[in-house]
Parts: sequence; C-alpha cells; structure tokens
Amino acid sequence: MAKVGIVDTSFSRVDMGRFVVDEIKKSTTKLKLIRRTVPGIKDLAVACKKLIEEEGCEACIALGMPGPMPKDKASTQVASQGLMFAQLLTNRHILEVFVHEDEANTEKELYALCENRAREHAQNLIRMLLHPEDMVKRAGTGQREGFPDVGTLKI
Amino acid sequence: MAKVGIVDTSFSRVDMGRFVVDEIKKSTTKLKLIRRTVPGIKDLAVACKKLIEEEGCEACIALGMPGPMPKDKASTQVASQGLMFAQLLTNRHILEVFVHEDEANTEKELYALCENRAREHAQNLIRMLLHPEDMVKRAGTGQREGFPDVGTLKI
Amino acid sequence: MAKVGIVDTSFSRVDMGRFVVDEIKKSTTKLKLIRRTVPGIKDLAVACKKLIEEEGCEACIALGMPGPMPKDKASTQVASQGLMFAQLLTNRHILEVFVHEDEANTEKELYALCENRAREHAQNLIRMLLHPEDMVKRAGTGQREGFPDVGTLKI
Amino acid sequence: MAKVGIVDTSFSRVDMGRFVVDEIKKSTTKLKLIRRTVPGIKDLAVACKKLIEEEGCEACIALGMPGPMPKDKASTQVASQGLMFAQLLTNRHILEVFVHEDEANTEKELYALCENRAREHAQNLIRMLLHPEDMVKRAGTGQREGFPDVGTLKI
Amino acid sequence: MAKVGIVDTSFSRVDMGRFVVDEIKKSTTKLKLIRRTVPGIKDLAVACKKLIEEEGCEACIALGMPGPMPKDKASTQVASQGLMFAQLLTNRHILEVFVHEDEANTEKELYALCENRAREHAQNLIRMLLHPEDMVKRAGTGQREGFPDVGTLKI
Repeated sequence: MAKVGIVDTSFSRVDMGRFVVDEIKKSTTKLKLIRRTVPGIKDLAVACKKLIEEEGCEACIALGMPGPMPKDKASTQVASQGLMFAQLLTNRHILEVFVHEDEANTEKELYALCENRAREHAQNLIRMLLHPEDMVKRAGTGQREGFPDVGTLKI
Repeated sequence: MAKVGIVDTSFSRVDMGRFVVDEIKKSTTKLKLIRRTVPGIKDLAVACKKLIEEEGCEACIALGMPGPMPKDKASTQVASQGLMFAQLLTNRHILEVFVHEDEANTEKELYALCENRAREHAQNLIRMLLHPEDMVKRAGTGQREGFPDVGTLKI
Repeated sequence: MAKVGIVDTSFSRVDMGRFVVDEIKKSTTKLKLIRRTVPGIKDLAVACKKLIEEEGCEACIALGMPGPMPKDKASTQVASQGLMFAQLLTNRHILEVFVHEDEANTEKELYALCENRAREHAQNLIRMLLHPEDMVKRAGTGQREGFPDVGTLKI
Repeated sequence: MAKVGIVDTSFSRVDMGRFVVDEIKKSTTKLKLIRRTVPGIKDLAVACKKLIEEEGCEACIALGMPGPMPKDKASTQVASQGLMFAQLLTNRHILEVFVHEDEANTEKELYALCENRAREHAQNLIRMLLHPEDMVKRAGTGQREGFPDVGTLKI
Repeated sequence: MAKVGIVDTSFSRVDMGRFVVDEIKKSTTKLKLIRRTVPGIKDLAVACKKLIEEEGCEACIALGMPGPMPKDKASTQVASQGLMFAQLLTNRHILEVFVHEDEANTEKELYALCENRAREHAQNLIRMLLHPEDMVKRAGTGQREGFPDVGTLKI
C-alpha cells in the first residue's frame, strides 16, 4: 500500500494537516498516511524528504500559512525553493499547500480557504497516485484549489 | 524512436499540451510523445524529471499559465528554477513554455498566444532533437515565440 | 547520546548561542552539544553541514542577527537558502533562528527577543529529537517563537 | 587540443556567437570550437553542461540578450543561476556574456556593445585557459567588457 | 601545511587579493597561499571550488566589488548563491568579501574599506583554520569587518 506523507507547521493558525488526513481517509483505503509537524514553513522540505527517503512515502503534502510581512514573503520563497529541490532530489511529488493570510478578508473566510484548499489538494494527490489518467483530462481547465475554479478560457 | 515528454497543468485556462501534441504529430513521425498533467507550475519540474529518468524521454516541454498576483510571480520564479535544475540534473533540455495573463489584452488574444507559443516551441524541440544544425542558423535572429519575430538588429 | 550543533555569528550583537546551550542543558541530559561561531550568517550553512557530516550531529540550530540594509536582506535570503540546502543534502533539521533588528523598538526589546526566540527554538529542537509526537499536537496552534503566540484561528 | 563551447540564442537580435568564433580563431590555434544555439537564455545552462560533459569542452561562453520587461529580468536571474550551477556541477568555467537592451541608447550602440563584449570575453577565456598568470596581473584593474575600462581606483 | 585559496576579479577597482596575501603572510607561516583572478564576481564560485577540489585548499576567500546598478545587484545575488553552494558541495568555508561602491562616500574611503575588510576577513580565516576556539569567544560581539565594530548590545 502506497504511503503518503503529510507535514504541517505549528506556526499555522489552522490545523491543515487534519483536513488532508480526513479527506484521504474518507476517499480511499489504498493510501497509508504518515503525519509530521514542524515549527515553520522552512522546516517542511527536509521533513518531506525524510518521509520519502527514510519512511518510503510515494508523495507528500506540505501545508503552511505564510505570514504577511516582507520577511515572511522572503521566507516563503526559500520554503518553496526547498520543496522544489526536495522533489528533484527524490523524484517524488510534494504538493505545496500554502494559504497566505492576505488571501481572505475575514478569519472565517481564511479558515474555509485553508480547509477547502487542503481537501482539494488531497484529491489532487489521490488522482496523481491512483488515477493519473484523470489528471490529463483536467489539463487547461482553470482549477483554483480553495476558490471557485475559473474554468477553461472561452473563445 | 526518441521520446518527448509533454507536461501541462490543470491551473492553466488553456489546454496547451494539446497544441504541442498536434504540432509534433503533424510535423514528424520520429518522436514518441508521453503526456502528463500536474496541478500547477511548481509541480512541472519533478514531473519532467520523472519522464526523463523513469520513462526515458530525451527532452520535455513544460507548459503553464502563471497568474497575475505578486505571489504568482514568486511561484513562477520557483517553477523556473525547478525546471532549470531538472535540466542540469539530467543533462536534457526542458523547454519552458509559460504564458502570463498580462501578455495579452483580450481572452481571444491570450488563447492565440498560448496556441502560437506552444506550437513554435514544439518546432524548436523538433529542431533541437532532429536538426540541431538548423538551430545555429537561427542564432541572433530575434525569434519571439507566440509573437511576431523582431528579427536581427539592423545596423 | 544524540549530538546537537549550535552555530552563531560574531556579527550578531547578542550571544544567542549561549541561550540555546543554557536552555538545552537545563531541560535534558540526553543531548550532547557542540558549539561553533562563524563571522556572518552566510557562513552558518556550511558550518552546520560540517557539524552534521564531520561531527555526527543529529540536528543543528543556526542563529544570526541580519542587518537592516537592503544588502543585508539580500544576504539573509542567501543565508536561508544555504540552510535549506544544507538540510536537504544531509536529511537533518537545521532550525534557523534569525532576529532582524527591525523586529524590536528598543535595544532592550531586541535583546529579550533574541533570548526568547533562541530558547523557544531550543525547546522545538528538543521536541523534534526526543518527543516528535508532541510536535503534531502543536499543529495549527499559531506558535510565534520570541513573541506571544497568536493561537489557533477562532471560528 | 582543448575544446571550448560557444552557446548563443535565437532570441538574441545579434549573432554574438559569431564574434567569439572569429575572435578566438584569429587569436590562437590552440583551441577547438564547438558551437550550439538554443531558443532562449534559460536554455543556455544545460547546453553548456552537455558540451562540457558529453563533448569534453574545457570551458564555455554563454551569450544572450535579455529582454527589458520585468518578466525578462526574472528570467535572466534564473538563467544566471543555471549557468552558476552548471559551473559548480562540472568544475569548469562558463563565462556569461549577456547584453541588456537598456545598456545602449541606439541600435548601433547596442550592436557594438554586443560585439565588443563578446570579443573581450573571448580574450578572457583564452587568458584563463592558456595564460592564467596573466589574469592575476589584471586583478583590481576595473575591466568593463564592452565598455571603456574604469581602471584602478586612484588614491 | 594547510592551503588557502584567494580569488579576486579584474572587474574590481582595487586589488583586494593583495591585502589578503599581505595580511596572512605577516600573521602566520602556517598557511600556504594560492591566488587566482577571474573576470567578475559570478566567476568566483567555481574558481574557489576548483582550488578546493583540484588544488587541495582547506578554505578560500572570494573578493569582489559589485557595481551599483540594479543588474549588478542581481548579479551579486547569483554570485553569493554560487559561493554558498560551492561551500555546501565541498564542506569548506569560503569567506565572501564584497565591497559595494555605495558603501563609501569618496574613492579614498572606498579604498580604505576594501583594504580593511579584506584584512579583517583574512584574520577571520586564520582564526577559523588555526584557532577555532577564538571564534566562539567572539560570538555576539557585533563585529563589522571594514567598519568600526558595533559591539555587544548594551542592556
């Protein structure tokens, strides 16, 4: 049974990893889940790489909530670069699921965005591991995880 | 027969991979195509690397439509860095075919830009794999994939 | 007994490494500490990598106080990228503990921030190495090392 | 006989590779030249790495003309990072010869800048490969390839 | 006897490598020096890596004088990233000694800054290689190579 790693942070104000666990468990019995929590988004990449190389995960989801300050934006860039290189060094997909505080107007909207984005990316991960042919059907369809999809360009 | 990988995204609003498949198929019978679709542009690099290392592709085309927000620009930078390193780690060319929403004024123009850029880069890939000597003839000719070429500087 | 590397800088205006040594020593007898000091934050990454690969450290803490000028911000980005890649090349966690001068209004506040952040990250490191299950309980709890925690989002 | 790789782009509006070929040929008979052309500046790095690792080149010159738009500046950064890492992964020098459109006021000046910078860097490459001791004599002399040199600081 | 690599540029307007050679020679007889000069700051990293891997240097100093234009700032970032990765790939320290033209008001001040920073980093290198315990004593002491030190924060 394929293993999936789920890594989130104690910096985040929403337990996003829980949504992924719930979404995958209610969608399939074919994936085994391993969960880790690290302090911040710059700690996600090596945690994912360890899950892949030391625990045998086929893929990971890395969840985080970057802060709004310029130095947070700079940290986000490094965190993303790390997730990118962890993928290239392992040949495994790691889906980055970040929710920026300035993507929502109220705390309620922010919470809903966290839940919806986490669940939709959990579905992406299931598709990529178990039904890759379904991904190709979605090419160019304007998916927006956590928000309403914008759809294919009308011409 | 050389294999070529074509990877696009479900985030994009145009099925750009389809243009590449069509362009290559109508231009040559010497290339075998393998297509993948991933959620977003930051997932392209590892998908290309897997096609090269696990499926034996000689080269890849990675297609995407980065969003217009500052955080989208930051993501584009990480996606490009990933494609760069995937190339360096495999010694294989991966042509990045990105169309930014702000490159066109109307949805119709945007769609045409996606199609034209994808097709012109498909021709670049064919040249690089099958007729590399033709590439040298194009040195310094001001090619602009998807737009009218600007040509060699007149002096 | 697991070894932990602690690396700080002579550029910093506060001896942040001392707080980490003190915090770990008074919290556990299960970790052996090795300390190094380098000139600036861009020297931290290789020092940590050497502690991991040449001295057998299981994890590191890298401490620094980036300056306020634009060129300091650029250096911070490179320093962070280095710490990220040192982690990915070793499969070991390196906690980055940076305090920016503009995070506090007075020198007294800045000193307190340095001490509190260093001590809280020392506790993170202890948890990650000795009680990883405690980290998962902290997922989404809005921890802010050195500042009051912001807590889980109320909905 | 040492081999040198010369890689330029079809995006550029000047055939800069030609200047390098001409300059090296008229300066020495001790270097064998291999030329490649790729679509854009982000394709240069892997082309150089392939010339070094698959064709045995001792060094390369990578030539390009980055565009003036913000997205071109972002591409230039990735292209430069790629050339940097191609060097570090091969332990071979790759001289980056980029001419930005906004470095000249007229097309005639731009063309001259392309030619002069390409030729001066061809001379740098010859020096580095055949007369490395001559490089040390130039330390701190304020060389400006393509422009008048600014010289050593007068004190 | 440990070897140290010293690499500077022909772009710089001050022969900074000379100060390092002089400072080390008058301070110790325990280090053997190897000097190289490259065209610009983006050529420093691979030159240092070659000195470490091909000539057996235990550490390097990389000296440069980045220009003041936005494109120079972008080059500096790539040059720094290269020096960072050269360190991580070799497990050797490379001290980056860059002097930006806008750090001084007059050419005389700029020259003095170049000399002082180069000499102080030469002393750092001697300490790191021969007296590492002396570095720890300097933790948090607010060293500012080339400028007056700012010292430990008073509380």
